[in-house]
Amino acid sequence: MSKKGQKDEIRVGLIGLGTVGGGVVRVLRDNAEVIRRRLGVPLRLVKAADRDASRAKALGLPAETFTTKADELLSDGSIDIVIELIGGYDPAERYLTEAMRGGKCVVTANKALLATAGERLFEAADRHGVEIGFEASVGGGIPIIRALKEGLAANRIEGLSGIINGTSNYILTQMTESGADFNEALSQAQRAGYAEADPTFDVDGIDSAHKLAILATLAFGTPVDVKEIYTEGIRSLDAADIAYARELGYRVKLLAIAKMTGELLELRVHPTMVPSDELIAEVEGVDNAIFIVGDAVGETLFSGKGAGQLPTASAVVSDLIDIGRNLVRGAVGRVAPTGYRPESRRALRVRPMAEIESVYYLRFQAYDKPGVLSKISGVLGRHGISIASVIQKSRALGAAVPLIMRTHRAAERQIRQALAEIDAGQDVAGRTVLIRIEGEEDGDAAAA
Amino acid sequence: MSKKGQKDEIRVGLIGLGTVGGGVVRVLRDNAEVIRRRLGVPLRLVKAADRDASRAKALGLPAETFTTKADELLSDGSIDIVIELIGGYDPAERYLTEAMRGGKCVVTANKALLATAGERLFEAADRHGVEIGFEASVGGGIPIIRALKEGLAANRIEGLSGIINGTSNYILTQMTESGADFNEALSQAQRAGYAEADPTFDVDGIDSAHKLAILATLAFGTPVDVKEIYTEGIRSLDAADIAYARELGYRVKLLAIAKMTGELLELRVHPTMVPSDELIAEVEGVDNAIFIVGDAVGETLFSGKGAGQLPTASAVVSDLIDIGRNLVRGAVGRVAPTGYRPESRRALRVRPMAEIESVYYLRFQAYDKPGVLSKISGVLGRHGISIASVIQKSRALGAAVPLIMRTHRAAERQIRQALAEIDAGQDVAGRTVLIRIEGEEDGDAAAA
Repeated sequence: MSKKGQKDEIRVGLIGLGTVGGGVVRVLRDNAEVIRRRLGVPLRLVKAADRDASRAKALGLPAETFTTKADELLSDGSIDIVIELIGGYDPAERYLTEAMRGGKCVVTANKALLATAGERLFEAADRHGVEIGFEASVGGGIPIIRALKEGLAANRIEGLSGIINGTSNYILTQMTESGADFNEALSQAQRAGYAEADPTFDVDGIDSAHKLAILATLAFGTPVDVKEIYTEGIRSLDAADIAYARELGYRVKLLAIAKMTGELLELRVHPTMVPSDELIAEVEGVDNAIFIVGDAVGETLFSGKGAGQLPTASAVVSDLIDIGRNLVRGAVGRVAPTGYRPESRRALRVRPMAEIESVYYLRFQAYDKPGVLSKISGVLGRHGISIASVIQKSRALGAAVPLIMRTHRAAERQIRQALAEIDAGQDVAGRTVLIRIEGEEDGDAAAA
Repeated sequence: MSKKGQKDEIRVGLIGLGTVGGGVVRVLRDNAEVIRRRLGVPLRLVKAADRDASRAKALGLPAETFTTKADELLSDGSIDIVIELIGGYDPAERYLTEAMRGGKCVVTANKALLATAGERLFEAADRHGVEIGFEASVGGGIPIIRALKEGLAANRIEGLSGIINGTSNYILTQMTESGADFNEALSQAQRAGYAEADPTFDVDGIDSAHKLAILATLAFGTPVDVKEIYTEGIRSLDAADIAYARELGYRVKLLAIAKMTGELLELRVHPTMVPSDELIAEVEGVDNAIFIVGDAVGETLFSGKGAGQLPTASAVVSDLIDIGRNLVRGAVGRVAPTGYRPESRRALRVRPMAEIESVYYLRFQAYDKPGVLSKISGVLGRHGISIASVIQKSRALGAAVPLIMRTHRAAERQIRQALAEIDAGQDVAGRTVLIRIEGEEDGDAAAA
């Protein structure tokens, strides 16, 4: 019936002794007892590979546990689970694939690889009858992968939205609190160690899009092509709009959004205004939060540290325990890699961005002269866009002043056409700023 | 190696067709397809029992699926999982025990039973080699049981605190927003259907204590005697203190707290002031939120609807899917009922309430005459209590006026002794109000 009692330990190999790898070594060592009490047998790190031997030494790993050659670990038939923590595409994918081909289960935190090669990896896990754990790929230690695959499995997921990039959230928090502009806030984040020298992946929304691809795959049972995710970062955000957002009762967050509208799946990452009295607006600094709406459970929020050595290691080791529990009971594969049985997955079509609907914040640089408001609102009206509120921030006859509008729910295509027409005309100086508003059915909740 | 493919459906029996039972029927019916896509085989409701036949009819259950006799369902050897949703102690425990003795897995939402008879039930599950699922017992559809048993399994849990009674939170939210007193807010909650005619379990903290017992058992691997939980409800809260809390930058929440301090476990339920800029302070109305601190993951928050037909059914059905996945793979018992292997559980001693330390809000009804502040602070000082801030709300020479103090961290025993001395003296009119403050290391964070 089961292999209970046949395994007296779970043997783990680890490739990559960087920040997270070091965290895994620490958690396995410091929490060995509580892990054994939960799992029933020890999780034993039998081999760790890194090109840099000094890292093993710094972590106090015994010489016999260390190798500079990942292949040594992949060919070790005694190892049950291989953890890949080197990041990047190659050789990470090759290591994972070879480990699975050899009948080993694998654990990875590699969101970029999962977002682009996830289908190949999931298929390999299924074909070889092994597990692939990737709780650490999204939301650090927040057990969000498990929530989607198991905790909320009774639900049809209607949508999810998340703050899933700590660097961007830190920068936005700085901009909101101190009024700093993007470049100042970025420099500050870099000095604080929260942003890399090249922050492209984080601030341009790419990392969020990778993570969204993973979450949407689990939530909706569909393969996701990361290239189909509309992705807009925070680099061009103006401090003025963040301040106006506050005045209007919103916070600006970089949200990753996936939701079913009709038969189509919306997938988008962009700066978003959320009502400041909602929990997700209060998620600050490098914290992450994921908001999931299920048809039965309603709205749920999961939040915590989205990165860092130990939070990420917490997720990696929880995967080891999970897989270990399956290995002990001969139940590898009890939950499919994506939470949906492979034969039951179905490719959903993605709604083109022009076809989404949203509430919009618009900031025109409008010339302060008679008739301009009427002309701008006339263009919007002709495109079927109805205005919820208007604020003119200052007066300076003949010069350009900020004219801020919130729309009612409108179609993205209409908004874009209207703005193209307005921006090409003589009533505004420069390009109109557009920020989407989420979290209210229509544009007048903030006024209520 | 496994029973994969041997089971072509999971057969479910349901006892109790009340609110939650009806929700389970609906979720199993409405989400049959997505459940099958995740589990691989159908979850089939083969028999439902209730004393009231009209309920089955109202839910559209076919006659052959319904019985008025729970025993009929317990003796049906074809049933894999029995759900108990009648609540209360007897016959609920007998049904669960009989089902397990017959080799069936069980699922229950019965927090009162789990809090008092959990050890017997867990032991029975282990002895009979079956599963007992109880995700629905705490936090409605929030997958908090699973987070403690699995998602955060790599951590030593340091502490947890939660808003786990929606009725109390609704009442406190009303009191905070409208300034209503307890009785007004309770009546309003009753009219809105959020409080029962006899609200004792909810407003006196009993329900929170039951749920805390369950959470602490999972978090710390120890049996918990619910009678050892210090329990103080919200009935005697004064609207004035809620208003003063706001002024000081706090919200008052009924928190259930479990944390390790040294070798001892603190277990307590009481009204608590939390800094209003923390996420948990923003959890309003009937929502629940549980905050868990793990040594690796750091601080995590899980929130959502804590009760209601469909959220609770979401949790019940997620347990069915979880157990179903084990049944399909012959891996029943892969995770022990409490998340810790039975032989690894250890009874922790509970710290007596007098020995806890906290930051305190104190409201004296002090006579407005020279020397009173000095005398009161002198008594506190002699008991080793240091004062972080003092506010005298108004002046009325010779009459009693509110004198509000926040202490630095102090021992409960000292506070109680000091207050006994002060309240017995001539400087105050009536009993001093004490509310514990959590969420800051010391008493001066709110001033910062």
